[in-house]
Amino acid sequence: MGFPIMSEDVPYANYRLTARLELRNRPGAFAAVAHRLARMRANLGAVDLVSADRRCVVRDVTFDVMSDLHGKRVIRALSALRGVRVVSVSDQIFLVHLGGKLRVESKFPVTTRNRLSMVYTPGVARVAEAIARDPARAHTLTIKRNSVAIVSDGSAVLGLGNLGAAAALPVLEGKAMLFREFAGIDAWPVALATQDPDEIVRTVERIAPVFGGINLEDISAPRCFDIESRLAASLDIPVMHDDQHGTAIVVLAALRNALRLVRRDMGAVRVVVSGVGAAGVACCRMLLMAGVTRLAACGRRGVVLEVGPKNLRRARRNLLGELDRSRSGAPLRQALRGADVFIGLSQGNILRPWDLDAMRRNRIVFAMANPDPEVDPMKAVRRCRVFATGRSDLPNQINNALAFPGVFRGALDVRASAITDTMKLAAAGAIAALIRPEQLNEEYIVPSLFDKRVVPAVAAAVARAASAGGVARRSLSVLSLQSIVHR
Amino acid sequence: MGFPIMSEDVPYANYRLTARLELRNRPGAFAAVAHRLARMRANLGAVDLVSADRRCVVRDVTFDVMSDLHGKRVIRALSALRGVRVVSVSDQIFLVHLGGKLRVESKFPVTTRNRLSMVYTPGVARVAEAIARDPARAHTLTIKRNSVAIVSDGSAVLGLGNLGAAAALPVLEGKAMLFREFAGIDAWPVALATQDPDEIVRTVERIAPVFGGINLEDISAPRCFDIESRLAASLDIPVMHDDQHGTAIVVLAALRNALRLVRRDMGAVRVVVSGVGAAGVACCRMLLMAGVTRLAACGRRGVVLEVGPKNLRRARRNLLGELDRSRSGAPLRQALRGADVFIGLSQGNILRPWDLDAMRRNRIVFAMANPDPEVDPMKAVRRCRVFATGRSDLPNQINNALAFPGVFRGALDVRASAITDTMKLAAAGAIAALIRPEQLNEEYIVPSLFDKRVVPAVAAAVARAASAGGVARRSLSVLSLQSIVHR
Repeated sequence: MGFPIMSEDVPYANYRLTARLELRNRPGAFAAVAHRLARMRANLGAVDLVSADRRCVVRDVTFDVMSDLHGKRVIRALSALRGVRVVSVSDQIFLVHLGGKLRVESKFPVTTRNRLSMVYTPGVARVAEAIARDPARAHTLTIKRNSVAIVSDGSAVLGLGNLGAAAALPVLEGKAMLFREFAGIDAWPVALATQDPDEIVRTVERIAPVFGGINLEDISAPRCFDIESRLAASLDIPVMHDDQHGTAIVVLAALRNALRLVRRDMGAVRVVVSGVGAAGVACCRMLLMAGVTRLAACGRRGVVLEVGPKNLRRARRNLLGELDRSRSGAPLRQALRGADVFIGLSQGNILRPWDLDAMRRNRIVFAMANPDPEVDPMKAVRRCRVFATGRSDLPNQINNALAFPGVFRGALDVRASAITDTMKLAAAGAIAALIRPEQLNEEYIVPSLFDKRVVPAVAAAVARAASAGGVARRSLSVLSLQSIVHR
Repeated sequence: MGFPIMSEDVPYANYRLTARLELRNRPGAFAAVAHRLARMRANLGAVDLVSADRRCVVRDVTFDVMSDLHGKRVIRALSALRGVRVVSVSDQIFLVHLGGKLRVESKFPVTTRNRLSMVYTPGVARVAEAIARDPARAHTLTIKRNSVAIVSDGSAVLGLGNLGAAAALPVLEGKAMLFREFAGIDAWPVALATQDPDEIVRTVERIAPVFGGINLEDISAPRCFDIESRLAASLDIPVMHDDQHGTAIVVLAALRNALRLVRRDMGAVRVVVSGVGAAGVACCRMLLMAGVTRLAACGRRGVVLEVGPKNLRRARRNLLGELDRSRSGAPLRQALRGADVFIGLSQGNILRPWDLDAMRRNRIVFAMANPDPEVDPMKAVRRCRVFATGRSDLPNQINNALAFPGVFRGALDVRASAITDTMKLAAAGAIAALIRPEQLNEEYIVPSLFDKRVVPAVAAAVARAASAGGVARRSLSVLSLQSIVHR
């Protein structure tokens, strides 16, 4: 197999600069700029005229560059051109972020005194008293019905490491936008000025009353496991660390469909997972729940978990207990020998393409490290039956945004008190099932992020699983199922 | 003086019920309902037809009642009518609250992959890294620029007492609506599941990164004093307990204008404050800062604070040190003798109208207990030169919503690190100054809540005071002053 992929030389469309240039007013002034951009492989986009007089012309010139360094070089080169002055440079991504990306709105305007006295004093007093008598009514009479906290301590921001709470904010805001846009959920970014697990747990417990769910985000492993399980135990609303379970749900969905292609069962394949951070551990857990019986997981120093017939039950019960991070076992390349499935949740370029040849034929490789996959996708793709990454510029993007909006939508819809394993398995099943047998192929194993069927399907499956599992506190009528999204 | 006031017999417009009635389909069926409502003084409003067949007609009948009890009695009376069945009853205020009153919106839609990769991964990584290098950039690149937490532990919800966090939620949501509608601020309700002052302080410190300001709300005295001062000391964003300072600012504004009417100075009048809770103490402080030199404050057991020439400087420095809550001094009525100004922030009907006669002539009385003022307004008003309450159905409504939106607007606009005393005094001055000399009269000493000039005027005054006082971290250009509201 093979597919057209973006060459590394093509400018990365998300690094777009707009330079305001003052050009001497004479023929060929702009042509020199365009020529220099082309020579430096900066993709020229829009050109706007700002002002012009006899002496000079001011233009806003927008172009794409490949990196920070490339951008600086291009600007320097433009400045060096005769008759060109760089007045200012702006970066589209920063412009989009100015002032933040969210807004808290009133659901209706407060323009009259009568309206004011209904939503605030004195009218609101009756609502407050009703909730004081029966606190469960907060689920219907306040935003708790539809709100999720996105909580991070900034200890593992994207793949960038421990950048702290303030730096996590734009990521949390972006995630809140996805909650709104994909699932109609009111999500609020909670960036915590502490990285102590006890303090994180206590803080989230104390701010929980206004939220119908807690999405933990970008919290480093292994602290995230303990924090999540303690919060899940103490709170009566769903708690989910998305880096773990969102990823695991989508990996399972993708693997289900990949195995359908090669006509093999979960129980029959040997799986190697690279990475035992939040996502890696959660994936191992999820795969074992879904029926995988042979699995090896590798950390930086080699195999740290080996699950087989002997310890399968133990591992399914308590994976963390079976994991030995201190062990330095066989290296990843060795572990790949005879494997059917490789799941990479570790770091870029740790495998050479030919390392995959040690795997069995019809191999399935998910190389999800960001931004660079574990193995060069352009060279690996030919060697695999199914190849997937986390990248949006390749087919088979395994992205947790396929899972979390629907998972929380379903949980909120039935006022779930928790997110159980069966709810996660149901979510994975729903995502996989969206691809009909006749559509399924090596380059289409998961639906698109923008496929409008995803969130309703996941939400419905999660809600049903919650009801069946006894964690739903509200029954889901057909009516509410139909209107599940965008309320 | 005197003014037309609502009689207690007039139904309170905020208690509106809609009853779905099934009426036997024959002439006079509805007339019987209307007649019964009129007899019971339930004000008939809208009538909608839901369905009709030969046998019966279903109508939604909306009417106003005076209280919970009155509503129940009316419903019972309707049920007792022959040929009438009450199918259901809904309460307008509860309907307005269904699902909460706020929404978190994206500032722009995320409908394309390109947009997604700008607001979330991978594009957002560059913004996160920029903030990690310089955390102050969170003020421009995230919602911190315009966000306020409204924090309550539910210990003093409205005048209702300690109802807890969940019951505080509808109040906090209502307040967030006012922040949005009056000042264009993104406010988020933070209802805390703890009432321990240490835990409150630590929790707010930890969730502070996403907020540009903290509005403490409905936290009981005396805990609120300590909580506010500790948070103000530890955080680098403005912290204000609105029950204290919002009220104090508006009281000072109203008193300034009342004294202009009677042509007397702050330093020349004797003031009696009733109530030494959050608002009472803050008012005393504010008045002393504004030039009052003679002041007595009464608690439940009588005078607990007496400020005069001897302890004036001490009290201005440390009012709480001068306050002796354990003291059982002269009763309020005695303290009123020879006073010029009465400021009630305590409880309803603790004074008889003629108790005010012990005050000097041209007396100024602000009876702000809610919902019932300290003295019957209908009888007190004739005895005073200036009379004000917290009620919206009387002239001179002293409402802290005149202050807090503009105070936070101004503080956010200059990225203030604190809310200082001079900022509060400036806010009071700005509110008072909105009433021009030729407009000023006994029934118009503060502007209306819906006066569009209030927020910009207060914000500008607060921003200027912050800049002058050295707590502004961003200079306020003329441009930003012009666009101060509704961004």
